[in-house]
Amino acid sequence: MMKFYYAPHTCALASYIALEEAGADYEAIRVDFKTSQQLSPEYLAMNPKGRVPVLITDRGVITETPAILAYVAQTHPASELAPLDDPFALAEVQSLNSYLCSTVHPGHSHGIRGARWADDPAAHEAMKAKVPQNMTDYFTLLENRYFRGPWVMGETYSIVDPYLFTISGWLKQDKVDINQFPRIADHFNRMMQRPAVAKVVAEERAKV
Amino acid sequence: MMKFYYAPHTCALASYIALEEAGADYEAIRVDFKTSQQLSPEYLAMNPKGRVPVLITDRGVITETPAILAYVAQTHPASELAPLDDPFALAEVQSLNSYLCSTVHPGHSHGIRGARWADDPAAHEAMKAKVPQNMTDYFTLLENRYFRGPWVMGETYSIVDPYLFTISGWLKQDKVDINQFPRIADHFNRMMQRPAVAKVVAEERAKV
Repeated sequence: MMKFYYAPHTCALASYIALEEAGADYEAIRVDFKTSQQLSPEYLAMNPKGRVPVLITDRGVITETPAILAYVAQTHPASELAPLDDPFALAEVQSLNSYLCSTVHPGHSHGIRGARWADDPAAHEAMKAKVPQNMTDYFTLLENRYFRGPWVMGETYSIVDPYLFTISGWLKQDKVDINQFPRIADHFNRMMQRPAVAKVVAEERAKV
Repeated sequence: MMKFYYAPHTCALASYIALEEAGADYEAIRVDFKTSQQLSPEYLAMNPKGRVPVLITDRGVITETPAILAYVAQTHPASELAPLDDPFALAEVQSLNSYLCSTVHPGHSHGIRGARWADDPAAHEAMKAKVPQNMTDYFTLLENRYFRGPWVMGETYSIVDPYLFTISGWLKQDKVDINQFPRIADHFNRMMQRPAVAKVVAEERAKV
């Protein structure tokens, strides 16, 4: 059985949903960020980045959301979570997941984790101030140019959907009104109605 | 024939090398950043992000380095640039490429493109000041925990190699001495000796 390490309110939610959608054989293990468990020697031995998500397979450790999402899709082909045998369609999926991980996620992180990129507290405030504009720009692009509907890639649900859903859920904290992006807002609501998503969101919200 | 849009001194170098290593049928087109060609209406119609790299295939446009790299590998299986049929080994490749695109590349970008994340010039200086430390931290992790040798993933050259090579080439600008990371420094030098790399680097350096 695989082990999946996550923490609530992080990008690990995307992989958690994908594992559930795929019907994967896994155990979810919550990492306690309040006690900085992700920086403990035991955790760092497993993932020296000190982050979530982490997926432990029988072959070893996988980190980074796009890699875990693609692995879940490839090892659970019956779930049809990615167009594995169509290189161009798969590249479109990977392109969006790369954009979410390299641009949109860091766009959010500058509001709460400015210390990663500067030591001066004034700089953290300056970064925080720009988050609403950047996230609005990124989501405008997603809404108008990349979101096909009803799912991100069109008719077929894929590993991009839980990733977009996860970051859409951060917009409120980023002081961005998701209703500016009606198709993405509708996507968010429909995602919440999927049994796999509802189950995982409830587990994340459960008290430990 | 595919069209590949790149600009010198950008992450497009990784995809450019991969296309050359794969023996792909492509035409390389230089985008003139000095005249902001990447922000022209024609270019934005093709890639609304206003960035490089862009690969135009017979099916449409692909953006984002990890997606282009995986596409080149998948459409040129004889070049053996990725372990396509081994989901775990492929996940290790995608994990490193995700780390390079989401953490290491932005780590560099904060030295020259701080305006993306804050409006205050003092914040740009604060970000720039932290670049050497962050890049040193990232490359220490790559050197000690992820680089297997002689190539990044071990005995087999893969799509991670041109991507690491590309970012290794930015360390000097980031005021980080690559020789602190002897295995990555050796990798950089061996990469330069590969015919595909030498050809592409010469084309990038050629005056237009």
